[in-house]
Amino acid sequence: MADQAIQDLYAEDYSHCYGCGRLNSHGLQIKSYWSEGECICRFKPKPYHIAIPGYVYGGLIASIIDCHATGTAAAVMYNNESDKNQKDPPPRFLTASLQIDYLKPTPLGVTLEVRAIPIEIKGRKVVVNAELYAEDTLCAQGKVVTIQMPEERLQELIKNDR
Amino acid sequence: MADQAIQDLYAEDYSHCYGCGRLNSHGLQIKSYWSEGECICRFKPKPYHIAIPGYVYGGLIASIIDCHATGTAAAVMYNNESDKNQKDPPPRFLTASLQIDYLKPTPLGVTLEVRAIPIEIKGRKVVVNAELYAEDTLCAQGKVVTIQMPEERLQELIKNDR
Repeated sequence: MADQAIQDLYAEDYSHCYGCGRLNSHGLQIKSYWSEGECICRFKPKPYHIAIPGYVYGGLIASIIDCHATGTAAAVMYNNESDKNQKDPPPRFLTASLQIDYLKPTPLGVTLEVRAIPIEIKGRKVVVNAELYAEDTLCAQGKVVTIQMPEERLQELIKNDR
Repeated sequence: MADQAIQDLYAEDYSHCYGCGRLNSHGLQIKSYWSEGECICRFKPKPYHIAIPGYVYGGLIASIIDCHATGTAAAVMYNNESDKNQKDPPPRFLTASLQIDYLKPTPLGVTLEVRAIPIEIKGRKVVVNAELYAEDTLCAQGKVVTIQMPEERLQELIKNDR
C-alpha cells in the first residue's frame, strides 16, 4: 500500500474539501491509499454520525464514497504517470454523478473500509466502483463518475471566490 | 406551506439522524416543509462545507437531498392519511438508493433550496425527485428510492443497539 494518502499530495488550493481536505479542520479528513489496482479508505464514524440509533448516517456514507472515489481517480492518474520521479501534485477530480445503493444498515462503532477500483478511464473521466464494508459485511456500494477538472478552470472558479 | 417541518413530527427514536434529527446537536438539522404536492427544504451551508474554495461540498449536497427525500416521502404519507385529525407521528423512511447528478458548481454563501416531488408511490416505496437551486440556478438533481421501514423492524434494529 502507498505510504502516503493521495489527499496529502493534493495542491494546497484543493485541500480544503470538507470530506477529504487535510486543511479543513472541521471536515472528515478521509484518506485514500492506493494499493496495486485498488484504493482503500478506512474511516471510523463519530458517535453522532447516526441515522437511527446504532447505525451510520447514509449521507456520511455517500460523502466518504464521494471523496474516496475522486481520490481513487487521482491516485490512478498519479500512479499511471510514466515518470515515477515526477513531483507534480496529483490531478484534482470532481464528481459528476454519484450512485449509492444501501444494502444493509451499517453499524456504528466500527471502522468502515471502502474498497474502490476504477472501472472506466476515458480522457478526463474516471468511473469508480466502491464497496463499503463493516467488519467484512458489504453494507453499501457506489458508482461514481469523476471528471478531472482542467487546472485553468479550477483556478478560474477559485479566483471568482476571491 | 405546512407550518411544521415533517422532521419536527418524527417520533423521538427517529429524531437523532445527523442530517435531519432535531435531537442531534452536531447534525445539519435540515427541515422539510410540505406545500401542495411538493416539499421544500432551505439550507445555508456553513463556510467549512467547502469543496474547492467558494463552492459547496458535494457530500453535503448528497446529504441534504438524502434526508429531504426521506422527509418528503414521510410528508406524502402523512398528508395522504384520510383522517386529517390523526395524531400519530409520520412514518419513517430510509434510503435504499441515492442518485445525484452535479450539474454546476454550487456557490457557498447563499441559502440553497431543494424542491422535491414524489414520482412513484408503490406499497412501502416512495421514489422522490429533488432539484437543488442556488439563487434560481439548478445546480444538482437527485433521484432517491426510499422505503418505509416497518415499525417492528426499526425497533428491532434499535433494540440491538441497546
